[in-house]
Amino acid sequence: MTDRFEISYLYHGTDPAAIADVIRVEQTIEFPADLAPSWIQDEVVGKVEEISLVEENIHRITISYNPDVTGGELTQLLNVLWGNASLFPGLKVVGIKIPEVITSRFKGPRFGIDGLRAFYDAPDRPLLTTALKPMGSSPEVLAAMARTLAVNGFDMIKDDHSLANQPWAMWVERVTAVARAVTEANEETGGRCLYAPSLNLPFDRIRDAAFEAKALGAGALLVLPGISGFDSLRSLAEDDDLALPIQAHPALLGSFVTSPTQGVSHGILFGTLMRLAGADITIFPNTGGRFSFTAIQCLEIQNGAQSKLGHLKKSWIAPAGGMTIERIPEMITMYGNDTALLVGGALSRGDLAENAARMSALVRGS
Amino acid sequence: MTDRFEISYLYHGTDPAAIADVIRVEQTIEFPADLAPSWIQDEVVGKVEEISLVEENIHRITISYNPDVTGGELTQLLNVLWGNASLFPGLKVVGIKIPEVITSRFKGPRFGIDGLRAFYDAPDRPLLTTALKPMGSSPEVLAAMARTLAVNGFDMIKDDHSLANQPWAMWVERVTAVARAVTEANEETGGRCLYAPSLNLPFDRIRDAAFEAKALGAGALLVLPGISGFDSLRSLAEDDDLALPIQAHPALLGSFVTSPTQGVSHGILFGTLMRLAGADITIFPNTGGRFSFTAIQCLEIQNGAQSKLGHLKKSWIAPAGGMTIERIPEMITMYGNDTALLVGGALSRGDLAENAARMSALVRGS
Repeated sequence: MTDRFEISYLYHGTDPAAIADVIRVEQTIEFPADLAPSWIQDEVVGKVEEISLVEENIHRITISYNPDVTGGELTQLLNVLWGNASLFPGLKVVGIKIPEVITSRFKGPRFGIDGLRAFYDAPDRPLLTTALKPMGSSPEVLAAMARTLAVNGFDMIKDDHSLANQPWAMWVERVTAVARAVTEANEETGGRCLYAPSLNLPFDRIRDAAFEAKALGAGALLVLPGISGFDSLRSLAEDDDLALPIQAHPALLGSFVTSPTQGVSHGILFGTLMRLAGADITIFPNTGGRFSFTAIQCLEIQNGAQSKLGHLKKSWIAPAGGMTIERIPEMITMYGNDTALLVGGALSRGDLAENAARMSALVRGS
Repeated sequence: MTDRFEISYLYHGTDPAAIADVIRVEQTIEFPADLAPSWIQDEVVGKVEEISLVEENIHRITISYNPDVTGGELTQLLNVLWGNASLFPGLKVVGIKIPEVITSRFKGPRFGIDGLRAFYDAPDRPLLTTALKPMGSSPEVLAAMARTLAVNGFDMIKDDHSLANQPWAMWVERVTAVARAVTEANEETGGRCLYAPSLNLPFDRIRDAAFEAKALGAGALLVLPGISGFDSLRSLAEDDDLALPIQAHPALLGSFVTSPTQGVSHGILFGTLMRLAGADITIFPNTGGRFSFTAIQCLEIQNGAQSKLGHLKKSWIAPAGGMTIERIPEMITMYGNDTALLVGGALSRGDLAENAARMSALVRGS
């Protein structure tokens, strides 16, 4: 059974056997099971592997699927995982086992933890990352901000994910100005700061924009899988001609995790799936910030991003959303050093250069 | 204020003024508002237009946004609507007003209700649609099924949305065989049945596959915005070289609507947004089928799909998910004739040709 694709669901309701039977059909043939040829019933429809009581009216259901049902593609894998099942109330995906026959079809993170450690010659410390804001700023203002952050020790500077083609800073002008500023800062310092422009762009612009960004000197990319699809991330991450580190942002994905009784667990969505799709860094709202994730949910994300998953490299985690320099020691205690620290707006309270240098000194221990 | 982009939220919680202030910043500048230049606070950050008590600890909050914040692109419009806000618990989008300055940037459904009525010379009746299944069937078996459905009066036959590149019927072989079968059936009957292959495919295959499908004789397309992104739908719908009717499928989108206290309302997600993105037909699980939508939620979808929205054509609705021929009269009573009836697996219970002919006679009144 280890070569099957296993999904475990938590079901809130009274008849787990009935719903298990519905799910195994719904997620595969969507057809009256008794009318399907018997070999399809045996080989294509999912198999119920486990129904166990968790507490009253809550059961854990595990169903295994023939890996061929996914067609080896992330899009259909997501559909088997949660496509029509997302329309059932009281059902939550809480476990996933992806067999080698599937993981071997994916490249996962191109750089991951070891790759970016080597790139930055940072064998042990967390990464220093931040975001360019606020929206409304001109390309020149954002470029000046990026320069300040780059000369003061930041490893990666992303566009605020919301920056798209607003009139105040259109994508091409912004990426041109910021990439140049970061390149010049690197020449000055000998550093390797990378700028990650946001690919929060139309479907038919994303791939071209990624290559344009690279040509303009951007050394990384920011992708929004909730908006452009997880497979946009995979497609960019696996592209050997692009070969840039990628940060993934959680926009729009909150609805999959906020309900305790419906959706997909934090660890699977922001950990396993982001990594399978190729995120070198998975950004999520840290506990105690502007959002609502618990410490346990955040650690589940880290587990999904960094525990063994076939041959795939480990992803950095970036617990974010209202973080401050003051919280860094606590974050390192909680997550360890395989963490891309992401402090955004808080760096602008007071002097940006001083704050950036202070955060860099804290993390680099110098 | 009518030229601003207005979003109304239902908030379950105790301090609506505080959350309103958080949302208007979070969905725009994501930056300490007091540190932003005053013109950005005035022109870029959202404005709270309404906070009204609905019942104890439930408030309706309306925030308006400068349309420029969306950059005129669906991707960033979705991000303003629900990007980071999706990470807040207790918040649900229940209203949306899209000003003309934004709707004018979108083409919406290319055919819509009037366009497909003209194409089929069907000035009044519902459309007859169905799906090819079960997964596991060979291209030849699916093609034979399509032929039977086409000669017996169906207007549109889609792939089951889960059909991708499974080994039993790889995409190209399947689309080739089915498109040919439907074309031959049309030549035989003089009918105009359209085949809609599923574009449940990798990000970097979708556009090419759409054109390949057209070249192979497919007359329509099936898109899964929950998996490939709403903007994949928009991009294909707006492509004048493609110019095919598009059905949109709800896979993966359930998590946005199943919680009564979090997410996006049924009408906005499956009605307004599907239409804005260009769905000629929006498929959703009908009340009383295999899923959980209520009659009111379904009628809200119809309202979003068919009430006035700028210059955009109206979308057909396809209430689906376990429908039977027996339910058709009730569905027509509930939704009226601007409905694409979608009966799938139930047609295979008994004789497919007989069932198809019976459904066609019922709907065509002959």
